[in-house]
Amino acid sequence: MAVGLSEPEKILPIAGIKLGAIAAGIKKNGRDDLVVLVIDEGASCAATFTQNAFCAAPVTLAIKHLNHASPRALLINSGNANAGTGAVGMQNAKQSCQWLAEKLQCSDDQILPFSTGVIGEQLPMSVLQNGIEKITNELSEDNWLSAAQGIMTTDTIAKAVSKIIMLDGVEVTISGIAKGSGMICPDMATMLAFIATDAVIEDDYLQLCLSAAVGRSFNAITVDGDTSTNDACVLVATNKAGNKPLNENSKESKHFTEALDEVCQLLAQAIVRDAEGATKFVTVSVSQAMSKAEANDVAYTIAHSPLVKTALFASDPNWGRILAAVGRAGVEKLDISGVNIYLDQVCIVKNGGVDAAYTEEKGQAVMNQNEITIAVELSRGDESTSLWTSDLSHEYVRINSEYRS
Amino acid sequence: MAVGLSEPEKILPIAGIKLGAIAAGIKKNGRDDLVVLVIDEGASCAATFTQNAFCAAPVTLAIKHLNHASPRALLINSGNANAGTGAVGMQNAKQSCQWLAEKLQCSDDQILPFSTGVIGEQLPMSVLQNGIEKITNELSEDNWLSAAQGIMTTDTIAKAVSKIIMLDGVEVTISGIAKGSGMICPDMATMLAFIATDAVIEDDYLQLCLSAAVGRSFNAITVDGDTSTNDACVLVATNKAGNKPLNENSKESKHFTEALDEVCQLLAQAIVRDAEGATKFVTVSVSQAMSKAEANDVAYTIAHSPLVKTALFASDPNWGRILAAVGRAGVEKLDISGVNIYLDQVCIVKNGGVDAAYTEEKGQAVMNQNEITIAVELSRGDESTSLWTSDLSHEYVRINSEYRS
Repeated sequence: MAVGLSEPEKILPIAGIKLGAIAAGIKKNGRDDLVVLVIDEGASCAATFTQNAFCAAPVTLAIKHLNHASPRALLINSGNANAGTGAVGMQNAKQSCQWLAEKLQCSDDQILPFSTGVIGEQLPMSVLQNGIEKITNELSEDNWLSAAQGIMTTDTIAKAVSKIIMLDGVEVTISGIAKGSGMICPDMATMLAFIATDAVIEDDYLQLCLSAAVGRSFNAITVDGDTSTNDACVLVATNKAGNKPLNENSKESKHFTEALDEVCQLLAQAIVRDAEGATKFVTVSVSQAMSKAEANDVAYTIAHSPLVKTALFASDPNWGRILAAVGRAGVEKLDISGVNIYLDQVCIVKNGGVDAAYTEEKGQAVMNQNEITIAVELSRGDESTSLWTSDLSHEYVRINSEYRS
Repeated sequence: MAVGLSEPEKILPIAGIKLGAIAAGIKKNGRDDLVVLVIDEGASCAATFTQNAFCAAPVTLAIKHLNHASPRALLINSGNANAGTGAVGMQNAKQSCQWLAEKLQCSDDQILPFSTGVIGEQLPMSVLQNGIEKITNELSEDNWLSAAQGIMTTDTIAKAVSKIIMLDGVEVTISGIAKGSGMICPDMATMLAFIATDAVIEDDYLQLCLSAAVGRSFNAITVDGDTSTNDACVLVATNKAGNKPLNENSKESKHFTEALDEVCQLLAQAIVRDAEGATKFVTVSVSQAMSKAEANDVAYTIAHSPLVKTALFASDPNWGRILAAVGRAGVEKLDISGVNIYLDQVCIVKNGGVDAAYTEEKGQAVMNQNEITIAVELSRGDESTSLWTSDLSHEYVRINSEYRS
């Protein structure tokens, strides 16, 4: 059960983008498992990828193909991650790009491949070939929702967001889809996000915008601290909206980056809301840190603590676990007398000790909610961070221990 | 249910050490909760403590009291951690040392206080005072097992080890007890170990021996990656065995440190075997790393991965999760073609890909055992590490989500 997340509403088309989604037969349950996002000529493309050294074959190939100035399609399959598959896996990734390139009459390196699903199994190539043959007949500007469904694996709900902004008096649209249910389940190798806009943007600036937005969204979520072999986020700009080309110096650029941030954050939060076994959606904010890294260390130590996460699952205002996590986060010479901890607006710890006004009842009232903010003040500096996480439930253990049985 | 761990056998007395254990009434279940370990004059003492910035009042006080050359007693209560208790907690820790010092006719700073149990509640001082009054009448050289039971909290089984070695032709004994069930459960703030030997050892060397032994034992275990506010390990040398004083240059010192390592490792492993909800005892070994730190990064990333841990619980040879953990451990410029991964003797990954001879059946046979070794070779250097961990089970979630309800 996703926390505070409902089926996405209608997703707005992006001029210059057509999508297709079909059930090719890679997934055993008969659901859609092959998606293409076909891009008109003249678009530009930025992407961020997993830092995992064991990245999947399609990740390696997509990074290489991004060198081409003008990608023509994203080719995405779910049900099989093509990770841990060695030289055969790489050959298969290349072959599938070639099949789609033939259909679209472009070069192989204008296709960016993505896979998500089971690790360590080879792609079923004839199934894939038949799928690619069929899918190019199914393209439509209005297929964003079907595409969002087609990239799902253990997700319980599709994740898609649209936003319209005005730039230079013209309407610019951003639409995006994402999948992921657990920061990673490496046998369902995991997070993918595909975002497109019709905005006109200079190439270099496109990558800057995406990297910044990902840092504030997909890189600010954690379910279990694992990082997938397949994680990728792609931003396509079709350059069709008619605005003045955006670059670092455009006065309209802030407007665009704020909208992109919002789309990325909503998609990233949707992944956490639909995290494996999640019953809580938790924001962890750390402020007054000496550095961003220090703020992140404290926030991730809290967010990854199995003891904090099980207390959240139990709706137990067990503040000792939060305090202990702050204390072991490795902050150099932490003066605990400067530490304040809040559950939403309720102060639990003030100057390193239990706040005089704190009562178990106040803490319990916050913990009973399914959306909670844990805020920590360190009294050391001006840097802060914020991330989103979920709890650790019986259902998480069930999903991850029974998945292959 | 502890994994491969039975009730300890008779623990050998140490000349110069008497112990007492009683039910003072701090625990609500009526079990023993107050323990003293009284030390004859002339002994020396070394200790290691938690690095958690939010360390408990007794930890701060014990560190201070260790400045006294000759401690006379360890005073340990279970059922209450005296952590997160502010100035009142510190005053209470001091007061309890004072009460015991009066009984033993020594100075307050010759008492080292330790507490384990619930965080954030004040010690019940009148109960403690009555307990200290009574316990000094119950002292015996043969009370090691009662003491091991008296320091338990969520432990399901007492943890105690003895070892005899010959140094310079004289018999030297090392006896130790430990508690902990979960690397930390900060509301049952956690790992304590008390070890004594009658060996004659120079003071400075005693601390060296203990720090090294702890690095290879209590600091090489992880259940959930949390570090308690109360962790402490103490080594008392009563200097009564009649051996030549041990120091760095003694030819017998290696003999002693090996025995101490063994005692510490057996106690540390006992904590993992009795970890909250554990159904597996897992050794993670990483070799051929460029540095010890790199080996540790990889080993801890595997040992902390909730996905690896749930696969272990499910007895699922889901090697993709181990591979993904190695890949995200942050090893700089990791060449995956040099990575080999083994489950016991079964090679899963060879040169970065699935080993040609690997079959699911072979992996399953290892995973069905309740003691498993995951070994990783990095082909980068000569450094290695080994640590012990447990799996992540439904029972872990149940214990840690229901504990306070």
